[in-house]
Amino acid sequence: MTRRTTINPDSVVLNPQKFIQKERADSKIKVDQVNTFLESSPERRTLTHALIDQIVNDPILKTDTDYYDATKLQEREITAKKIARLASYMEHDIKTVRKHFRNTDLMKELQANDPDKASPLTNKDLFIFDKRLSLVANIDPQLGTRVGVHLGLFGNCIKGNGTDEQIRYWLQERGATLMKGIYGCFAMTELGHGSNVAQLQTRAVYDKQNDTFIIDTPDLTATKWWIGGAAHSATHAAVYARLIVEGKDYGVKTFVVPLRDPSTFQLLAGVSIGDIGAKMGRDGIDNGWIQFRNVVIPREFMLSRFTKVVRSPDGSVTVKTEPQLDQISGYSALLSGRVNMVMDSFRFGSKFATIAVRYAVGRQQFAPRKGLSETQLIDYPLHQYRVLPQLCVPYLVSPVAFKLMDNYYSTLDELYNASSSADKAALVTVSKKLKNLFIDSASLKATNTWLIATLIDELRQTCGGHGYSQYNGFGKGYDDWVVQCTWEGDNNVLSLTSAKSILKKFIDSATKGRFDNTLDVDSFSYLKPQYIGSVVSGETKSSLKELGDYTEIWSITLIKLLAHIGTLVEKSRSIDSVSKLLVLVSKFHALRCMLKTYYDKLNSRDSHISDEITKESMWNVYKLFSLYFIDKHSGEFQQFKIFTPDQISKVVQPQLLALLPIVRKDCIGLTDSFELPDAMLNSPIGYFDGDIYHNYFNEVCRNNPVEADGAGKPSYHALLSSMLGRGFEFDQKLGGAANAEILSKINK
Amino acid sequence: MTRRTTINPDSVVLNPQKFIQKERADSKIKVDQVNTFLESSPERRTLTHALIDQIVNDPILKTDTDYYDATKLQEREITAKKIARLASYMEHDIKTVRKHFRNTDLMKELQANDPDKASPLTNKDLFIFDKRLSLVANIDPQLGTRVGVHLGLFGNCIKGNGTDEQIRYWLQERGATLMKGIYGCFAMTELGHGSNVAQLQTRAVYDKQNDTFIIDTPDLTATKWWIGGAAHSATHAAVYARLIVEGKDYGVKTFVVPLRDPSTFQLLAGVSIGDIGAKMGRDGIDNGWIQFRNVVIPREFMLSRFTKVVRSPDGSVTVKTEPQLDQISGYSALLSGRVNMVMDSFRFGSKFATIAVRYAVGRQQFAPRKGLSETQLIDYPLHQYRVLPQLCVPYLVSPVAFKLMDNYYSTLDELYNASSSADKAALVTVSKKLKNLFIDSASLKATNTWLIATLIDELRQTCGGHGYSQYNGFGKGYDDWVVQCTWEGDNNVLSLTSAKSILKKFIDSATKGRFDNTLDVDSFSYLKPQYIGSVVSGETKSSLKELGDYTEIWSITLIKLLAHIGTLVEKSRSIDSVSKLLVLVSKFHALRCMLKTYYDKLNSRDSHISDEITKESMWNVYKLFSLYFIDKHSGEFQQFKIFTPDQISKVVQPQLLALLPIVRKDCIGLTDSFELPDAMLNSPIGYFDGDIYHNYFNEVCRNNPVEADGAGKPSYHALLSSMLGRGFEFDQKLGGAANAEILSKINK
Repeated sequence: MTRRTTINPDSVVLNPQKFIQKERADSKIKVDQVNTFLESSPERRTLTHALIDQIVNDPILKTDTDYYDATKLQEREITAKKIARLASYMEHDIKTVRKHFRNTDLMKELQANDPDKASPLTNKDLFIFDKRLSLVANIDPQLGTRVGVHLGLFGNCIKGNGTDEQIRYWLQERGATLMKGIYGCFAMTELGHGSNVAQLQTRAVYDKQNDTFIIDTPDLTATKWWIGGAAHSATHAAVYARLIVEGKDYGVKTFVVPLRDPSTFQLLAGVSIGDIGAKMGRDGIDNGWIQFRNVVIPREFMLSRFTKVVRSPDGSVTVKTEPQLDQISGYSALLSGRVNMVMDSFRFGSKFATIAVRYAVGRQQFAPRKGLSETQLIDYPLHQYRVLPQLCVPYLVSPVAFKLMDNYYSTLDELYNASSSADKAALVTVSKKLKNLFIDSASLKATNTWLIATLIDELRQTCGGHGYSQYNGFGKGYDDWVVQCTWEGDNNVLSLTSAKSILKKFIDSATKGRFDNTLDVDSFSYLKPQYIGSVVSGETKSSLKELGDYTEIWSITLIKLLAHIGTLVEKSRSIDSVSKLLVLVSKFHALRCMLKTYYDKLNSRDSHISDEITKESMWNVYKLFSLYFIDKHSGEFQQFKIFTPDQISKVVQPQLLALLPIVRKDCIGLTDSFELPDAMLNSPIGYFDGDIYHNYFNEVCRNNPVEADGAGKPSYHALLSSMLGRGFEFDQKLGGAANAEILSKINK
Repeated sequence: MTRRTTINPDSVVLNPQKFIQKERADSKIKVDQVNTFLESSPERRTLTHALIDQIVNDPILKTDTDYYDATKLQEREITAKKIARLASYMEHDIKTVRKHFRNTDLMKELQANDPDKASPLTNKDLFIFDKRLSLVANIDPQLGTRVGVHLGLFGNCIKGNGTDEQIRYWLQERGATLMKGIYGCFAMTELGHGSNVAQLQTRAVYDKQNDTFIIDTPDLTATKWWIGGAAHSATHAAVYARLIVEGKDYGVKTFVVPLRDPSTFQLLAGVSIGDIGAKMGRDGIDNGWIQFRNVVIPREFMLSRFTKVVRSPDGSVTVKTEPQLDQISGYSALLSGRVNMVMDSFRFGSKFATIAVRYAVGRQQFAPRKGLSETQLIDYPLHQYRVLPQLCVPYLVSPVAFKLMDNYYSTLDELYNASSSADKAALVTVSKKLKNLFIDSASLKATNTWLIATLIDELRQTCGGHGYSQYNGFGKGYDDWVVQCTWEGDNNVLSLTSAKSILKKFIDSATKGRFDNTLDVDSFSYLKPQYIGSVVSGETKSSLKELGDYTEIWSITLIKLLAHIGTLVEKSRSIDSVSKLLVLVSKFHALRCMLKTYYDKLNSRDSHISDEITKESMWNVYKLFSLYFIDKHSGEFQQFKIFTPDQISKVVQPQLLALLPIVRKDCIGLTDSFELPDAMLNSPIGYFDGDIYHNYFNEVCRNNPVEADGAGKPSYHALLSSMLGRGFEFDQKLGGAANAEILSKINK
């Protein structure tokens, strides 16, 4: 019964594509405009779609439903193939930016590392490739990570901690940034320490006689653990180790340590490596463990932008360090990952929202009365409540994700400039900016990776049994996703850290009137002393009348929550005791950020939404998102007296329920606006044509061909047939419960 | 650096076993008493541990960490091997109950199906094996399901719908119940219909001339879908199909349809079967799809306890049906699964709670001040909040799980007796009991499978990166678990159905004073008219002073929630519009059930807890569970005016926070009390000795042996080395961006 051989071709029992086509035909949403809004600008939109089109049509990079059947070793090998393929795209992308497709051997000149011939590579040279990588990561997350560990973590560790010459040597001359010569991994976490980087135990002991470092793993728990790329691919590692000079421990610094010969892939002396093995998801990444047994590296392999071991001609040694910058450098290596995870939240969310909305529109179940046709799932109020707010999530993530990304790149540029020119004042400013960026990215990373984990899980459930099939993508999607809640800063730890900074800003503002009118006006505008005052005095009141109110109500709630926490801490003198509430502060801060950024963008000319009906629909998305989370957190909204119990019953919940059928009308338009091709969804129940049952059935059949020798006869069938065919041997011959005759015989 | 070769054996950097041993030594909890409470009675406890001991030491049944590395085909084959092994345990268990290890060929006599020789098999004969299966299902869930589909679903479908002679023929004479002769699957769901069983489309058309049925799949969407066992193992199916007699559609009935020859495993004529393929979890189950193309079966293969096609000697045909019983029979096939899932919730929950608590006690991270040793995770208030309420969950599930199981078996016995004796009055009573059992089991199944999904997810996150390793069990545990929220009644659908029945009882009681003092006094005691009146009048007030208050507060909340829903429905005239609130009714009903059953048991002599300190600890568990969920639902508790906002701030939350460090003190004792052997946990970070790092490292190494030819050199390394070693061929020879010289040459 494939598409062409349905037993009864006239049967119209269930015809999902009819519904989806009808909704699409009736939709008044201008998909082009919405997609431009979601992709941030017309130029970026064009680039996004050009790149997606290349990826999903590339014979090596494309990902099909057979992806869901690969074994761990197959996944690893396929991923390696894709990495090699990406390396050639990278050269292509750099030449595109540099407009160097003629006349020069750009790659050769870059690797020659001669600034007179070719100016050094910058982040700008890589903007096309970075976008390509970000998109690839949402089609094949393990591929994104396995490359990201090398380019992002290893590369950023060198960029953040190396001198200009070290950066050029390792990344450009040796070719790392070009995915040539060496492949790096990021050896930070250990078996015994993850979040607490300062307590890592691997040692880098300076050997004065030889002017080298000895890298050593002192103890089992100091084994480098979870290191992506270590098991199979990495030739070099950026190792976090304690700098020990003349017996003194200077804390954790970074070192480049060779692991394998890049041509033979044999491990170098003193390096022990093992495979971490099976994981919940992303098995295409070769996470490994590393132990160093007195591995010797030259002193110059220590990354020395901020801390340097200086050897004088007389042989004496000093350690020079710039503490303030040293601390900043710690932030920057992991920042990129966090910023990217917010962008991933947008793309992953839009993918699963697309699948679930299309399924909800096409799937029917239960008729209101006998004889009537069955109701589409999306027409059940409970189903609307389960699906539509989740559809709003990626909408609200998109603007903040792009803003955070832009902010990250501009701040990083500022940092490199200020640090190269040694401009102290500029350094002070950029360090404050970095701290704010840290707060926002930590709170947004934690909140959004959690939101998307919930989104995938809840939307899988709305697809019933079919959501549990691997071929519809939710299973692997979830398993791949949830590590985002743990790695590169555990979500709870990140939430606490960002919330503590917010609390400090709040206390400074509320008690001392201190507020930075230059740097804190954006994300922290709700912490202005006057505003806090007006909320506390009751002058600024909550309502849900104007569009702006749906954002402002979160500002008011944050202030009341922070004030409550302040009082508790004053009493208990313990910040740990309010940690559960601090996690909420981080979450509310992120939700407010998302609402405010969306509100600002949709209100600006930058929205690219000229059509009024479309804009209204976009505002409904915004309101639904806010109301959904107000209702989810109605406990806090009542506890902190933003709403009375009766207002929850008579304002919030009725508004929420009334919005659902309105947003429901636009749901196919809003879903199509993500403009995700089927090959990117990789989920037959969510394909564009809405032909749910044929698409799904055909993919299942394609991936599970019927055995030639008798359909459904497993290779191990003898196991089953001998079990089923067994007689009474056990009792009669083997002595299980011998019958009376036998017993009497042997009793003689 | 295995256990015996740590580089520095004196290192005491991290020593988790020290903490766990100390807590254990200091614990005053009487583990024996608590375990007896949790296992329901001393007799059951003894049986449980004897069975677990057999399973985890059986060379075929035992499950090791290599389980996490098996491919789909390996999992299926191993599962088949284990099934064959279980078949021999089954004979052993039946003989144990019947005390027939001597003198008789019990199996032969049972299969002879002669009641004079051996009385027919009953549920009682299988109680040891059922318990064995329930335990196996928590060590290897896919094995449990693959056997459960045959014995539970196929078997119960026959027991629930077959005549006495059909039951004896298929299950006993043909050997199905003994896992001999035939292996069954349960062909209910179709590609297009899951929850809406009444709309299934497979047809069973009566052929008057031949006195047979023709089983046919009319359309792609009528393909039987998700059928466990169909792809590889089943020889017979219990097929749900529309009974069509002389053109009239009598609705969906059940039929036994042969699929494969049990000796050759070749498919029979007209049967098409395919493999459903990869799933989110439980890949050891061979779920398949089935299409029937005019498959002919004898009329007598229709299961005819309640509906029968009767053929008169003159050839005329009538359909006899007992509508009331017909409906009941629909309930009973799926009831067993739901009841079992509540028991699974207890065991799965206890497993992951054990792992996470031990890890939290042994793992240290961050020191309060430089120089001090690092803090155990369990000593952070946030970590206590994340872990300890989850530890309470399986405690609160256990009593209700055993009670529901007992209730299920006794009600089913009543049903068979009443239906065999055709006692109309008894049938009316038992049908009411079944309906109540349906409400309780639906609400408890949905609520508990959700609770455990959350528990696994949240506890995985508390174990950081190590929770993401497959070898620590959370990944596969979650993937295997979450299908419980969807199958055998989708949780949302079940919640709505049970809540609608509760709402009806509430309205009957509140408006008409109707209440069944015999049957509704247990689970529905809060719906007594006097009690509702006293809550509505404000006479019965909420407080949290006495132990009973922690249960009663949920009764009060339920009444206020139901009253609120009643008002909304009266206004809107639409039950669908309150569906979000109805899901809450089901959840609150379940939570109250759990609290009440625990409270009653711990208060009774049946608790087996004589030690006062232990009992106090058990009460703390009860209070923490209630407070945690009150706080989680503080939105509703305020909205329905159970608590004022200030009471939430000043009573509920401080009580909750104050309890955490108290329960924390007992956490290892409470965890040890589950008495789960390491082999059942199958998670090295959670083993009894607390030697987290060595256990975990050793298991990773065992499952990922280092390659002989150069450690960490993957089979596909040439892919990587040629990428890294590439030169400038592309620009210079292949025409990527030819240099000036080449361009000028070809420009001539």
